[in-house]
Amino acid sequence: MADLPSLWTHEPHHILTFRPGDKVADIDAGATPGFDGSKSDAPELQAERNERFAELQEMLYANGRAGDSRSVLLVLQGMDTAGKGGIVKHVVGAGNPQGIDYTSFGVPTAEEKAHGYLWRIRNALPAAGQVGVFDRSHYEDVLVVRVHNLVPPEVWAARYDEINAFEKELVDSGTTLVKVAMFVSLDEQKRRLAERLERPDKYWKYNPGDLDERKLWPAYQEAYQAVLDKTSTGYAPWHVVPCDRKWYSRLAITELLIEALKSLGMSWPPADFDVDAEKKRLTQA
Amino acid sequence: MADLPSLWTHEPHHILTFRPGDKVADIDAGATPGFDGSKSDAPELQAERNERFAELQEMLYANGRAGDSRSVLLVLQGMDTAGKGGIVKHVVGAGNPQGIDYTSFGVPTAEEKAHGYLWRIRNALPAAGQVGVFDRSHYEDVLVVRVHNLVPPEVWAARYDEINAFEKELVDSGTTLVKVAMFVSLDEQKRRLAERLERPDKYWKYNPGDLDERKLWPAYQEAYQAVLDKTSTGYAPWHVVPCDRKWYSRLAITELLIEALKSLGMSWPPADFDVDAEKKRLTQA
Repeated sequence: MADLPSLWTHEPHHILTFRPGDKVADIDAGATPGFDGSKSDAPELQAERNERFAELQEMLYANGRAGDSRSVLLVLQGMDTAGKGGIVKHVVGAGNPQGIDYTSFGVPTAEEKAHGYLWRIRNALPAAGQVGVFDRSHYEDVLVVRVHNLVPPEVWAARYDEINAFEKELVDSGTTLVKVAMFVSLDEQKRRLAERLERPDKYWKYNPGDLDERKLWPAYQEAYQAVLDKTSTGYAPWHVVPCDRKWYSRLAITELLIEALKSLGMSWPPADFDVDAEKKRLTQA
Repeated sequence: MADLPSLWTHEPHHILTFRPGDKVADIDAGATPGFDGSKSDAPELQAERNERFAELQEMLYANGRAGDSRSVLLVLQGMDTAGKGGIVKHVVGAGNPQGIDYTSFGVPTAEEKAHGYLWRIRNALPAAGQVGVFDRSHYEDVLVVRVHNLVPPEVWAARYDEINAFEKELVDSGTTLVKVAMFVSLDEQKRRLAERLERPDKYWKYNPGDLDERKLWPAYQEAYQAVLDKTSTGYAPWHVVPCDRKWYSRLAITELLIEALKSLGMSWPPADFDVDAEKKRLTQA
């Protein structure tokens, strides 16, 4: 844990990993697993770790330019108001736009519907050297699609295996997956929705449909349980992040990204030219 | 200039606009036009203006979500080492990845070459609510292409009008163009190239071909002069930014973006639902 700030008592990528038998119903969305600090510690630590993430992200980009085909893909799933947008802004946003490839997946367009559900996902995969970010993802096709019966049960039921096979292919081709399930409590969701209704600068984030989804909470919990049970694999595990405390979820997901980047064992790419010869040429140029 | 920090004696979008008759040969890349401060003023001011940019960028994104079709497109052109990458990282990077659409244009791929030169450009145009960033652009097709005679003279010569027509179409469809020509001096370029050769963490940015391009400086100056003379239009003017002082170019381009966003006269989108009714529904949900 040499690189991990000492306020973490456990490495987030260990303590937050979903384990067989873990129950969604038992998740305490207000907890701060593995972190021994408080909200007041967060701003300074977040700023410091944002820089560390940015440094590693630049190194991945540099290696991509130098021919390394690897990439990282952050997959964000969570109930409304869990804070996906805040992760994009305050965590991913610390990176260099040059090497960040963000995609948001909404209700499928007509063109998207004309293809299989993984078509739009494949089109958005990060290129070599990029940190891709999926704001929602192919997991919508076993979450909202399952809860609302948008396809027959045998169709969505087959998707867990399809997704595992798809992700295996991704990992084998050099993409490190960071899958994050963000959990917010019903009470905190209510508070956040109320805030959107109080602030005219937040109206645009409010969607009356969110209240209808809220009523389906038990069905979503069941659908998330199935996702975690069936698609948390050794090569692409799920991380379960409690999100009632935004400062914690941001710190935790930053560490998940840093760990994924560190696991690539990168260094700055060596010169693919004769440094001394170029120095000589430059003095004469 | 209510919103402009007082260290600016002139609005950057005025003082940096290319004017008919201006000569590229006369540009002082070390100058700081319109700015009455120094390098020591830059960090605090940059941080403050980054926040202002981020706020306006989020407002554009919010309006895009609410049905406003407008967008902003920053076009960055400049000689090697002028600092395009630094603008992307330190200026654009202050925005939210959700609303930033970055594209780098390199040597055309086989697929790109099979189409007209504007094909890849059109494919990369920002969607509603986005701040697009072009790191190099269609102007490569009248810069490097002209200098290296990659197409016959009558072909590149026709492109200035084609580009003007293309940009007119863009502007008419709601895209505000911010075209920035970044100028670095020969001496400063040499210093920056030397730095890349001294630092192993910068080798990846060094390209031996840059030294060959350096020898073509006069031809590039001529090509830039033609670009500015022929494509600085009322609806899509060029801004000429001296870039020997990175802190100045970053502050200046931040202001150009802020001004472009402010010119859209946006406010937060109004609620497209009954706020009081939703508050009532929420208390019962």
